[in-house]
Amino acid sequence: MTRPRAAVVVTGSELVRGERSDLNGPFYAQEALRLGLQPARIAIVGDDPVELETVLREAFDADVCLVSGGLGPTHDDRTIELVAKVAGVGLRLDEGLEAEIEAISRRFAERMRRPYADFVAGVRKQATLPEGGISLGIAGTAPGVVLDAGSCVVVVLPGPPGELQRLWPRALETEPMRRVLGRTTEPERRILRMFGVSESAVAKALADAGGDGDGVEVTICARDFEIHVDLVVEPGMGARADELERDFLGPLEEYVFGRDGRSVQEVVLERCRAEGLTLGTAESCTGGLVAGRLTSVPGSSEVFRGGVVAYEDAVKHDLLGVPEELLRAHGAVSAEVAEAMAAGARERLGVDVAVSVTGIAGPGGGTPEKPVGLVFIHAAGPMGERPVRIEIPGEREWVRARSAATALHLVRRLLES
Amino acid sequence: MTRPRAAVVVTGSELVRGERSDLNGPFYAQEALRLGLQPARIAIVGDDPVELETVLREAFDADVCLVSGGLGPTHDDRTIELVAKVAGVGLRLDEGLEAEIEAISRRFAERMRRPYADFVAGVRKQATLPEGGISLGIAGTAPGVVLDAGSCVVVVLPGPPGELQRLWPRALETEPMRRVLGRTTEPERRILRMFGVSESAVAKALADAGGDGDGVEVTICARDFEIHVDLVVEPGMGARADELERDFLGPLEEYVFGRDGRSVQEVVLERCRAEGLTLGTAESCTGGLVAGRLTSVPGSSEVFRGGVVAYEDAVKHDLLGVPEELLRAHGAVSAEVAEAMAAGARERLGVDVAVSVTGIAGPGGGTPEKPVGLVFIHAAGPMGERPVRIEIPGEREWVRARSAATALHLVRRLLES
Repeated sequence: MTRPRAAVVVTGSELVRGERSDLNGPFYAQEALRLGLQPARIAIVGDDPVELETVLREAFDADVCLVSGGLGPTHDDRTIELVAKVAGVGLRLDEGLEAEIEAISRRFAERMRRPYADFVAGVRKQATLPEGGISLGIAGTAPGVVLDAGSCVVVVLPGPPGELQRLWPRALETEPMRRVLGRTTEPERRILRMFGVSESAVAKALADAGGDGDGVEVTICARDFEIHVDLVVEPGMGARADELERDFLGPLEEYVFGRDGRSVQEVVLERCRAEGLTLGTAESCTGGLVAGRLTSVPGSSEVFRGGVVAYEDAVKHDLLGVPEELLRAHGAVSAEVAEAMAAGARERLGVDVAVSVTGIAGPGGGTPEKPVGLVFIHAAGPMGERPVRIEIPGEREWVRARSAATALHLVRRLLES
Repeated sequence: MTRPRAAVVVTGSELVRGERSDLNGPFYAQEALRLGLQPARIAIVGDDPVELETVLREAFDADVCLVSGGLGPTHDDRTIELVAKVAGVGLRLDEGLEAEIEAISRRFAERMRRPYADFVAGVRKQATLPEGGISLGIAGTAPGVVLDAGSCVVVVLPGPPGELQRLWPRALETEPMRRVLGRTTEPERRILRMFGVSESAVAKALADAGGDGDGVEVTICARDFEIHVDLVVEPGMGARADELERDFLGPLEEYVFGRDGRSVQEVVLERCRAEGLTLGTAESCTGGLVAGRLTSVPGSSEVFRGGVVAYEDAVKHDLLGVPEELLRAHGAVSAEVAEAMAAGARERLGVDVAVSVTGIAGPGGGTPEKPVGLVFIHAAGPMGERPVRIEIPGEREWVRARSAATALHLVRRLLES
């Protein structure tokens, strides 16, 4: 089965200059994959009309062309004009759309204390669509449009990711997109998350199990210090996927912590909630990153009570009750202080479970005995204690982020024990 | 002056599927811009050979083609083979490179306890370069190569960003790249950072000042709740840039907080250090994000002593000394509690300057009087107090991130006062 191909075209001067990471390409690609299309390529261009036209022309070879950006009111926003040109159709003013954009622009003009007359040309420009294009209405002030260009269905959405994502479901409901999607079957996806194993060991396990193919595509991807494994299973290939999963993942089972795409902080909070436990943190070198990840989850306040960022020794002593003798005898970066920080967090924050992190994030502060990257982590709760000592090579932010990830996984393992 | 054009080709199945954000495209593009090349477009493709060949063929139209990825030992890594094909040259085994990769692979084989024979074919593949290609040696196990393909100079580097960035300087030193760069002049870049003003107000100020062009290119970009303005100034156009900067930025001067690309946390820490002040935080809804940003800066421990993540009311009381009556009378999300949190942080952490954040990040917890997105921030120090109340529309992570940014800017303004 060959899946219809999807080509993505992202426009934005700041994106082609590398000043900002593009979010729309990955969004479109993930959506295409989810819907059973084949993401063929992502092209990022600036506002140069020759470049944009070239890239659009190439992308129209695909079955679906997903475009973002270049829909603003100014002359250097040329997406609509060039989509029409490449499709070989003219332009028309959509009066319903014009009224919609006018209403918004009038309110904006008022707020900015400028005459609406300044906006008229821009509004007409934004309400102009390719002949035959289906308006999706607006998000923000920019419109979305779907154009059936013969062999290719073109979706054009605004550049701001929030606006694009708001209009995307409407694009899927148009007749041309439904027609293309009628030719696809959404493949089944299986998501596995592992921690504590290397990407190459997972790749080797896959190779040892005979590799992917035959209707099951496997992606292995190291992200956030975890290994994310994705199985894309063609319709009817479930048994083959089960078999591969068994052979491939059997030897790795101990590293698997999730099969539903939930993050480790979600797993930890959920586990605490289920067991009626409260949670707190005591952080030195991670400086709040562990608490920040935990509190990123909606509803975390049911479980997470608080944390102490004890950067200076005096704060470790004053707020966490770490004995001064302990700090003097072993130094702030030691297994003993990590343990005392976790105990102090449990007591002072009044929580059942606490995790502490103390280490040398660098670039300064390292010694031969305690080099940059040396980190002690300690998780403690009514079920017991789990200490860990790691040496993390690399730069400051890498050491901090990996320490935070390791701390969250350590709490998870403590809760599972 | 037309600058030589640079086209970027990034290969990686997980990138074209949107499973990971590409870092190499932005890196190549920023480098091209810095060197005086014109970044024309970035194309992201998977390992499909037809797609990759098509994209390479298009990219060879540019003066420089910057390629990343697809250099691994397995059959689906086809970059070298296709670069040679599109350039119309054959392949040759580079024996020096082979010896280099073999040495690494033998060590790896030992560690993995596999016979080296398993690796021979892969090593030969990785040591095979396009006829006429200049080997850049290896980073990790993958090689880099520069090929002069007539009208286009092609640079091929490994996909892992660290490896790519390590080999890139060597590519710049090859004869073909020096020749292209001999035709360019590095433009001057001026960087301005603003806070507290909207992107559209900045765009309007630029338009009112006559707009960019004539050798000065201006990019206005909203990022991290700040407005980043970049001026790219062609050689000899410094006076024009000065004039534009004066007319354009004069009315916006009060919002400018930096002209050197330093982040707000760096500005805050630097200011504290200069004045001999210590710093601490007290966070509720931001859950450690403010402390996390401050401690991301190397050397922050000279200034930043610690923070309290007081998620629960009891922690606000126990660790920050916020009076229970105050919490009862005004609620945790109030100007009064924000003020008491900052005062408590100064006292309990023993710091000169403290900033506190309390608010409703959502999605739950809102009421008609105190809706989701309502946040109180308070900065206090020996120079005085600065309270702020904001209502932030949007989702949980947006509310949290914007609150953290606002808190850092509030401390900055307090320190500037």
